[in-house]
Amino acid sequence: MARTTSLSGFTEWLPDERLVELHVLDTLREVFERHGFVSIESRAVETVDTLLQKGEIDKEIYGVSRLQADEDAEARLALHFDLTVPFARYVVENAGHLSFPFRRYQIQKVWRGERPQEGRSREFTQADIDIVGDGSLPFRCDVELAVVMARALESLPIGDFRMRINNRKLSEGFYLAIGLEDTAAVLRAIDKLEKIGPEKVAAELAETAGATEEQAQKALALAQIRTEDLSFVDQVRALGGEHELLEAGLTELAEVMGELQRRVPGRAVADLSIARGLDYYTGTVYETVLVGHESLGSVCSGGRYESLASKGKRTFPGVGLSIGVTRLLSRLLAQGHLTASRSVPSVVYIALRTDEDWGSAQDVADTLRGRGINVEVALRAEKFGKQIRHADRRGIPFVWFTDEDGRHEVKDIRSGDQVSADPQTWTPPQEDLSPRVVPAG
Amino acid sequence: MARTTSLSGFTEWLPDERLVELHVLDTLREVFERHGFVSIESRAVETVDTLLQKGEIDKEIYGVSRLQADEDAEARLALHFDLTVPFARYVVENAGHLSFPFRRYQIQKVWRGERPQEGRSREFTQADIDIVGDGSLPFRCDVELAVVMARALESLPIGDFRMRINNRKLSEGFYLAIGLEDTAAVLRAIDKLEKIGPEKVAAELAETAGATEEQAQKALALAQIRTEDLSFVDQVRALGGEHELLEAGLTELAEVMGELQRRVPGRAVADLSIARGLDYYTGTVYETVLVGHESLGSVCSGGRYESLASKGKRTFPGVGLSIGVTRLLSRLLAQGHLTASRSVPSVVYIALRTDEDWGSAQDVADTLRGRGINVEVALRAEKFGKQIRHADRRGIPFVWFTDEDGRHEVKDIRSGDQVSADPQTWTPPQEDLSPRVVPAG
Repeated sequence: MARTTSLSGFTEWLPDERLVELHVLDTLREVFERHGFVSIESRAVETVDTLLQKGEIDKEIYGVSRLQADEDAEARLALHFDLTVPFARYVVENAGHLSFPFRRYQIQKVWRGERPQEGRSREFTQADIDIVGDGSLPFRCDVELAVVMARALESLPIGDFRMRINNRKLSEGFYLAIGLEDTAAVLRAIDKLEKIGPEKVAAELAETAGATEEQAQKALALAQIRTEDLSFVDQVRALGGEHELLEAGLTELAEVMGELQRRVPGRAVADLSIARGLDYYTGTVYETVLVGHESLGSVCSGGRYESLASKGKRTFPGVGLSIGVTRLLSRLLAQGHLTASRSVPSVVYIALRTDEDWGSAQDVADTLRGRGINVEVALRAEKFGKQIRHADRRGIPFVWFTDEDGRHEVKDIRSGDQVSADPQTWTPPQEDLSPRVVPAG
Repeated sequence: MARTTSLSGFTEWLPDERLVELHVLDTLREVFERHGFVSIESRAVETVDTLLQKGEIDKEIYGVSRLQADEDAEARLALHFDLTVPFARYVVENAGHLSFPFRRYQIQKVWRGERPQEGRSREFTQADIDIVGDGSLPFRCDVELAVVMARALESLPIGDFRMRINNRKLSEGFYLAIGLEDTAAVLRAIDKLEKIGPEKVAAELAETAGATEEQAQKALALAQIRTEDLSFVDQVRALGGEHELLEAGLTELAEVMGELQRRVPGRAVADLSIARGLDYYTGTVYETVLVGHESLGSVCSGGRYESLASKGKRTFPGVGLSIGVTRLLSRLLAQGHLTASRSVPSVVYIALRTDEDWGSAQDVADTLRGRGINVEVALRAEKFGKQIRHADRRGIPFVWFTDEDGRHEVKDIRSGDQVSADPQTWTPPQEDLSPRVVPAG
């Protein structure tokens, strides 16, 4: 669908594309609710102070201000750039009204003023799930969250994917074990592995983390471990090094991987190169690539954070994962991998014999609607051929005719079959009731 | 729910309130789709130029700009303040990809920088339906739209409402018939009737529209006509005056009212005081009040527009109605008229006997989930009393126990009844499957 939009970076779907998006969002919602997650929405704006607390991302932010601001000294506002920071603020603000552990999903638009490119919009939809505790949160939430999200992605018509999982404790513990104390600097360098390659990472490790050649090679060796089973544990041990944090990370990652292997086999990889840029993660970190679309980058990312949200001495640790819905759909729609079976919700289009029949046609429509069937009535008594073409252009499968004696017939315009029908009893095939989303090849 | 929010005018719902909102939005979507309307979403931002074309509302607009704008001369952007202007722009921009008449619904947030007060937020959700034609649009769309929206409102748990309907042709034709040529000035004055009363309106009519005392009284008499049936036609004729436009307006309004009386009896009033401030309306105009909450103002408004959208000589006439969802819910939630039966989607909470049971508890949960039941598993093997209280606080009706021999029991914590259960077959009552929305009184 090679359309240009009038504002670069702001995607708007045509009706049939929007039906695909709605199908995706409905499916995510159903899976999230099936696992006990409740919906919330946060306001689109945050104070600039709230947004800046969580990282150096000011240049990506869209500021918001009234065109005719009055004298009030109002807080500086900006559009949120993700759903994690607003959620943390929401939890702190409403802590007295929430029951912990609190599991919520949140599906909303977010905005970033980045230069638009494929997979990177200025306005896009994210679908997040998080579990947040009051003071503490059992580790098994990291396991549960990965399972729920893998199931959510499995239920979408998006083809195969791989959830790549690591644990910061594992990486940081290993770095400490081999004598690299500035673990943040090491993580920042390792995070660039895919982009700049091992040699440049080694140079950066020497420069910013003071790594010897041997330390750099060990850190790189760790980052190259990828297994679909639990064998990563032995591979890490073979590199040597002992540290309490390393042990904790190995145990946690093994638990996540074991449960994923059991409940959603074939979807997860322990990938020790995953670091995630944002520094608030403290344990499990997740990324997800679509198989065959790796160049798109991660379509579902997140991790464990111990102290993103806090209120005085009270902390709210959590674990979260976020799907980049717009990124995912932009690629799959643009390449024709997903289409909707029609561009409107209607199953039946009621044709008019004369303009005066509109009222009785609405009666027929109401009888069908009362039985859960989506119906549109023609607005004018044009030639039947023209009315049929009107339905056909939208992909509406059935056209309904009523003759002057009030006898009804319904035509399946795909097959051309036309049969007698009674609005009290006629029912379209189940698979035609709603527009279907068709994965192409 | 007397909560203060950290940013005045930006409403955020708690989970149980959000469940009520979701119920409302789901219901609207279902009714709209049942009548053949398709979903679209437009981007949150428009160029300031697009927004200002449609009226003098600059002081309500929130401008948007990147905090660190680069050298590019980018278009000035602002958040949309309604869904009609963006929809008009979307139709013009995508005309080549749409089938007309095009019927769409659009449920999104909009933003206005107004001073916050009850019923007036800075960020709020609107739910719009419009039908737009290419070049022309049959009048019966005005009828159909009113019927669909009245049905949508009837299907919500919001109590009684009145849709107040007028027709600009009727009013303007009458003003011309009695010799008042500046019909826009008359409409602007009449629009203030409820706010400032008849005497001040008469003074304004004399001053801005050059009305004589007799003309002013006739214009006021017209505005005082309100009938639930078609008797408004005779009442208008009794005021005298003849004009082609008046006749056209009487015929149209009678058709709308007749069909509403037939299909959604008791919901509509022909109210000839309705003017609607925005000047793009050209025929039917609608407002809606909640009975018992008239002070809230209109919760659903709209009208017919002949030329909101155009592309060169090509025009796209339309008719639209918009529900102020946040306004509606703010009042009904604040006064306790609507509550959700629980604050989470889960029907079943699976208790843990020991921490090691978590895996097998997830197996039970997955069996239930596979059968369409929303389930949450406890995270820790706390005392059963504590686990039951955890479910109770969220309003989850059932708690599931598995003993050391693998025998299952499920307790309805409302009645205290506890029975044997098999995860393969046990099913909660239909009415417990999803959170219910309970209209109070």
